Amino acid sequence: MADRPAIQLIDEEKEFHQSALQYFQQCIGNRDVGLDYHVISVFGSQSSGKSTLLNVLFNTNFDTMDAQVKRQQTTKGIWLAHTKQVNTTIEIDNDRPDIFVLDVEGSDGSERGEDQDFERKAALFAIAVSEVLIVNMWEQQIGLYQGNNMALLKTVFEVNLSLFGKNDNDHKVLLLFVIRDHVGVTPLSSLSDSVTRELEKIWTELSKPAGCEGSSLYDYFDLKFVGLAHKLLQEDKFTQDVKKLGDSFVMKGTENYYFKPQYHHRLPLDGWTMYAENCWDQIERNKDLDLPTQQILVARFKTEEISNEALEEFISKYDESIAPLKGNLGSLTSQLVKLKEECLTKYDEQASRYARNVYMEKREALNTKLNSHISGTINEFLESLMEKLWDDLKLEVSSRDKATTSFVESVAAGKSKIEKEFNESMETFKKLGLLISNEEITCKFSDDIEERIKQLRDAELKAKIGRIKKNLVPELKDHVIHLLSHPSKKVWDDIMNDFESTIKDNISAYQVEKDKYDFKIGLSESENAKIYKNIRILAWRTLDTTVHDYLKIDTIVSILRDRFEDVFRYDAEGSPRLWKTEEEIDGAFRVAKEHALEVFEVLSLAVTSDNVEIIPDVPMAEEESGEDNEIYRDNEGVFHSRRFAHILTELQKENVLDQFRRQINITVLDSKRSIITTRTHIPPWIYVLLAVLGWNEFVAVIRNPLFVTLTLILGATFFVIHKFGLWGPVVNVVQSAVGETRTAIKDKLRQFVVEDHEVKESFEMKDFSKNEQKEK
Amino acid sequence: MADRPAIQLIDEEKEFHQSALQYFQQCIGNRDVGLDYHVISVFGSQSSGKSTLLNVLFNTNFDTMDAQVKRQQTTKGIWLAHTKQVNTTIEIDNDRPDIFVLDVEGSDGSERGEDQDFERKAALFAIAVSEVLIVNMWEQQIGLYQGNNMALLKTVFEVNLSLFGKNDNDHKVLLLFVIRDHVGVTPLSSLSDSVTRELEKIWTELSKPAGCEGSSLYDYFDLKFVGLAHKLLQEDKFTQDVKKLGDSFVMKGTENYYFKPQYHHRLPLDGWTMYAENCWDQIERNKDLDLPTQQILVARFKTEEISNEALEEFISKYDESIAPLKGNLGSLTSQLVKLKEECLTKYDEQASRYARNVYMEKREALNTKLNSHISGTINEFLESLMEKLWDDLKLEVSSRDKATTSFVESVAAGKSKIEKEFNESMETFKKLGLLISNEEITCKFSDDIEERIKQLRDAELKAKIGRIKKNLVPELKDHVIHLLSHPSKKVWDDIMNDFESTIKDNISAYQVEKDKYDFKIGLSESENAKIYKNIRILAWRTLDTTVHDYLKIDTIVSILRDRFEDVFRYDAEGSPRLWKTEEEIDGAFRVAKEHALEVFEVLSLAVTSDNVEIIPDVPMAEEESGEDNEIYRDNEGVFHSRRFAHILTELQKENVLDQFRRQINITVLDSKRSIITTRTHIPPWIYVLLAVLGWNEFVAVIRNPLFVTLTLILGATFFVIHKFGLWGPVVNVVQSAVGETRTAIKDKLRQFVVEDHEVKESFEMKDFSKNEQKEK
Ligand SMILES: Nc1nc2c(ncn2[C@@H]2O[C@H](COP(=O)(O)OP(=O)(O)O)[C@@H](O)[C@H]2O)c(=O)[nH]1
Ligand SMILES: Nc1nc2c(ncn2[C@@H]2O[C@H](COP(=O)(O)OP(=O)(O)O)[C@@H](O)[C@H]2O)c(=O)[nH]1
Ligand SMILES: [Mg+2]
Ligand SMILES: [Mg+2]
Repeated sequence: MADRPAIQLIDEEKEFHQSALQYFQQCIGNRDVGLDYHVISVFGSQSSGKSTLLNVLFNTNFDTMDAQVKRQQTTKGIWLAHTKQVNTTIEIDNDRPDIFVLDVEGSDGSERGEDQDFERKAALFAIAVSEVLIVNMWEQQIGLYQGNNMALLKTVFEVNLSLFGKNDNDHKVLLLFVIRDHVGVTPLSSLSDSVTRELEKIWTELSKPAGCEGSSLYDYFDLKFVGLAHKLLQEDKFTQDVKKLGDSFVMKGTENYYFKPQYHHRLPLDGWTMYAENCWDQIERNKDLDLPTQQILVARFKTEEISNEALEEFISKYDESIAPLKGNLGSLTSQLVKLKEECLTKYDEQASRYARNVYMEKREALNTKLNSHISGTINEFLESLMEKLWDDLKLEVSSRDKATTSFVESVAAGKSKIEKEFNESMETFKKLGLLISNEEITCKFSDDIEERIKQLRDAELKAKIGRIKKNLVPELKDHVIHLLSHPSKKVWDDIMNDFESTIKDNISAYQVEKDKYDFKIGLSESENAKIYKNIRILAWRTLDTTVHDYLKIDTIVSILRDRFEDVFRYDAEGSPRLWKTEEEIDGAFRVAKEHALEVFEVLSLAVTSDNVEIIPDVPMAEEESGEDNEIYRDNEGVFHSRRFAHILTELQKENVLDQFRRQINITVLDSKRSIITTRTHIPPWIYVLLAVLGWNEFVAVIRNPLFVTLTLILGATFFVIHKFGLWGPVVNVVQSAVGETRTAIKDKLRQFVVEDHEVKESFEMKDFSKNEQKEK
Repeated sequence: MADRPAIQLIDEEKEFHQSALQYFQQCIGNRDVGLDYHVISVFGSQSSGKSTLLNVLFNTNFDTMDAQVKRQQTTKGIWLAHTKQVNTTIEIDNDRPDIFVLDVEGSDGSERGEDQDFERKAALFAIAVSEVLIVNMWEQQIGLYQGNNMALLKTVFEVNLSLFGKNDNDHKVLLLFVIRDHVGVTPLSSLSDSVTRELEKIWTELSKPAGCEGSSLYDYFDLKFVGLAHKLLQEDKFTQDVKKLGDSFVMKGTENYYFKPQYHHRLPLDGWTMYAENCWDQIERNKDLDLPTQQILVARFKTEEISNEALEEFISKYDESIAPLKGNLGSLTSQLVKLKEECLTKYDEQASRYARNVYMEKREALNTKLNSHISGTINEFLESLMEKLWDDLKLEVSSRDKATTSFVESVAAGKSKIEKEFNESMETFKKLGLLISNEEITCKFSDDIEERIKQLRDAELKAKIGRIKKNLVPELKDHVIHLLSHPSKKVWDDIMNDFESTIKDNISAYQVEKDKYDFKIGLSESENAKIYKNIRILAWRTLDTTVHDYLKIDTIVSILRDRFEDVFRYDAEGSPRLWKTEEEIDGAFRVAKEHALEVFEVLSLAVTSDNVEIIPDVPMAEEESGEDNEIYRDNEGVFHSRRFAHILTELQKENVLDQFRRQINITVLDSKRSIITTRTHIPPWIYVLLAVLGWNEFVAVIRNPLFVTLTLILGATFFVIHKFGLWGPVVNVVQSAVGETRTAIKDKLRQFVVEDHEVKESFEMKDFSKNEQKEK
């Protein structure tokens, strides 16, 4: 009888029971088994008599099906039994080895249905840990594919190769095919040929891992075939067949002995236990055995196919039916919903029969694709709507009553209207399930409308600034040129006052506070401040250009000359002057020159009346990279300062003064010439009068020889002095004499000599002062 | 015995044989069968004794397996036989109906292996066309899932529902389960319960189409169970069981009669033939039955899983191992190849065991993903390389010897070098299989390098134009202002000549032909022409601004005045004039005024010496939309013409002439005043001399009372006339008297009177001419 009841090595939850080691120890007691043990397992369809066979053959006590009740699964998991008693034809009472028998749960049970996971792992485990694997099959199963577990064996062979194919222990397994209910009509040789051929075919078709490509079935397995008679209808023969089978498990040395050394794992028993547990772990972790059921695999394949077809039909219908409706929200949405519903319905009709989770997963994916496709049209519609609403807004803003409605108000109203209509359209799409996420669209729309409003605002601002510029620039130019062409000492104070007031006047409509402006565009305080600053920059640039273009050397000389002549030619009341004496001319010259040069300094350096250099309060220069903006060189090689206040260089100042002096000297010369011609011109009738009045005196002189002699002597002396240019010494002598005796000479002589002397001194003094000024 | 041999209705290639109609006619001859016929088919695993049963039961002659040879498939396709002879327990020799029997190819044959396509279609067809479907199964198959064709039945039930579920003919099928080799240990009731429960479970799990959700198994099928004893080991009982089965096919009216009216299709025989053919077409076309084999489905699932894992591992390793190598082509490529090979090897090891085409397909997809991921790094590398090479090119271009190497040459050399290194790098990647298509990268690279060269070219061009501008603008300004400040009648000819020559001088380095320039940047002829045109536009704008800013009213008045004074104040030799008479002044005045006004016309309208208006040869104005560029309104409301040649308006011309006249009149007045003072001034010593010389005459007059009396009378008369302003009439009288007696008066008197008269006339004439000119 059996030693002990069988234990469950691996339960239905695929847990390895470590009590096996304890069981082994109970079975073998204190005996040293060493390597003298064997492991046998069984594999086959459910209720194919596996347990019955093992019990009859090895006197084990595995549960078997009670056929009188019904056909159903009995063995669950993998059970382990120990035996030393094998049913044989003759009783051999010698030292029998310990045999450990694994009864494996039957494959293809209707209880597990499509879930083949445990079957594969159990079969794999049986092959891995056994020396002999009994493959149990009904005679009638031979020739079937699924029914004879050939598909299962193929998978098991493949995984076995990848997991254990390269093992170094040259472990081989005996596959013992036991053919049940073999009635004998078909010879066993024919059946074994069929099975062998099938196995070899499977092996050829296997996907073998690297290094096992050339391997053969027989590198890993030996095949044996045994037939057993019908247990119920041929009971005696069945018993006899089983005993004959039993002989091959105990008859060492004989040809048919099954436990050949090459099948043994060569592990001590406790080593085998660890090995078995390790095998189960590896098998459990192997993902190649983690396959979805046939149902799920088919469902994935079919739902994918159906989904693609439905989408294809949707797309083919889409364009032609949507094209004419692109502008109409109502008909567009209804058509979109219709097309989408049709597509999903078509999918549902065909795909709903497949596994629900797979069907729903693919439906979600299809829904996403449909929405993605639809979103293109929705985006187009929303963009068209946006364009239309935007045109409305632009028209409304441009045609508003500018007196009663501000730009900001009309833009805000238009924006509000756009947002309302846009959101309504989007809600329509969303309510109908055509739009999933509207955050992205809303965000893009908001960015778009902000961008467009910014453009509109920029255009309005540009127009306003353009108008300001169009007035400000010429006005500034005119005012500055007018002030500079008639300058005073405080011309720059005037220019600055006018500069500020001109700016103020041109943007007075936008002033909110002192130095705070709102350009009525809806900009922030800082943006308005920046625009104000830009306007000031423009104004300063205009001032700079105007000043530096106007105040050239020629212009400044002209200004100085005008100023000089105003004072020199006209008296305080504005009447033209008539010169009587040179002293008048010299005095007027000095005053006029001083009056002109008063403004020369302000025309060459822009300073206020407090002698403070004028510096722009905003940056004017465009930053030219790598260039010093303080100094630049013109095309004549002259270096200039770019500072606003610096109008003339020292060299240019010299140039101006030279030209000015030259011109006013000419004026003075003209004036002095007018005196000379006034002074020495004696009308012709005077000579007549003198002749008439002096006739009697003249006659008296002629009659008197003394007078004649004196006249001749004086004439001759006069002639000689003049001829030989001796007036200088004569003048000196006369002057000396005059200096000594002038107090006694009459007013006439003194007056005559002094007047001539003043003219000469004036000329010399002018030359001398000119040299003196140059030296300074 | 059997009437005729069976025919093949549907062959192994799934072709429907239309000879069936002919066969029917042969079987029934000229008899009118009407609806008195029945159709039976059989379904079950291969070699399960289906054909044997049909032959025994209906005396047909279907081929059966010869068990003594080997177990293998015999029936291929679907065969049709006709019988009227049913094997029954008692011989009933009455009018038997015609029975058409379909022998269907067995399912799960190892010959077809995993290909279940025909099995499904055959089973579906059998259900569709039969009244009774015999489901043949071994007793031992009960409890198995695949082994008992339950999976197959499930698929068939599903497709049957979708294809024929909504048929209006209320067609029902009797499923007659014949359990073979029923040894009787398990009661038939138990077996039928097991099968029924299994079928009901399958039906519940079915995915039913719309409209069939609430349907029951029994809406479409009736179930019957029959057990047959072991044919070989219980031969007599088997025969008896078959006869009992046969009774149920012929015993009308009995409870167990199988051919109930609700199973009949109610079609005449030829109608049934068309129906059968139509059914087969529908079944053939149904895609739900077109499933890949389990092998392929598993392969798809597993290779996807393996591929994703391999890719995941590749990506996790990728970043940290690539990051330090991004700059080195050699080590980068070797590491990329290594990582890619590792990934593909890992995939190959696990996935190569699965169906080859699926494995290769997924491998290609994985390869594409790997390359896509790698291409990111390659793009980064190539972009970095591009940046580095580009910096080299920029350095080389900027530091070239500008005397010996042109911009175009150095750019071309640099570009060639970049392309060479870039292509070498790309070839390296391509040769190692890391890059599939390099057209896109090459195209993007070419676009990039063209864009960068364009930027470099633009910068170089901008620099060149900047230098041209920096010289051209001030030079033009100076020249124009110089010419305009000292204008001649042909000033505009001079300005135009100088304008063209200044432009020419500044771009002479780039001239190729007359009016053709190459700016040595590598631009096309049209691009060079455009740049030349832009330079001319700039020059014209400068000319326009300079002219219109300079030629203001004040400046033109100043120019005219200078020109007047040059002629009026200085004689032909350049000496200052000293006026002797008013006639001289008037003559000089006329000449000088005419000389000044010569240039007034050219200063207000820019025309050449041929009196042709100067029009710019390039468009200067920036097009301000919606604005007429011919006329603009300044800030004083005055309308201006924007045409270049129009310098002064009519109003401004009047203004200039007024100011000019006022100024030159002052000058003339000064000059005339200088004459007056010259004419009438008598030095004081003359009076002394006159007194001295005329003392004796004076005394003589005093002593003579007549002279005294005359003197008093003349003095009194003189006083009265002066007091009452009667010089006019006195002058008239004197003139009249002189006119009558002047021939007798001495030169002195005539000279005195005439000179005084000329001065007065000069004054009156000036006023009169002034009024006259104003009226003109
Ligand atoms: N026809 C037949 N039935 C058998 C044979 N061996 C066992 N059975 C019966 O088949 C049923 C199932 O046997 P069992 O050993 O539990 O099958 P297991 O599920 O493969 O272990 C039991 O009712 C046995 O009596 C046999 O060789 N031939
Ligand atoms: N054990 C057994 N064998 C049978 C039975 N009926 C037929 N066979 C044998 O099974 C083999 C196959 O029979 P066949 O009718 O060709 O099977 P089919 O492929 O289903 O048509 C033949 O050798 C028959 O002799 C039966 O009821 N029991
Ligand atoms: Mg069992
Ligand atoms: Mg057959």
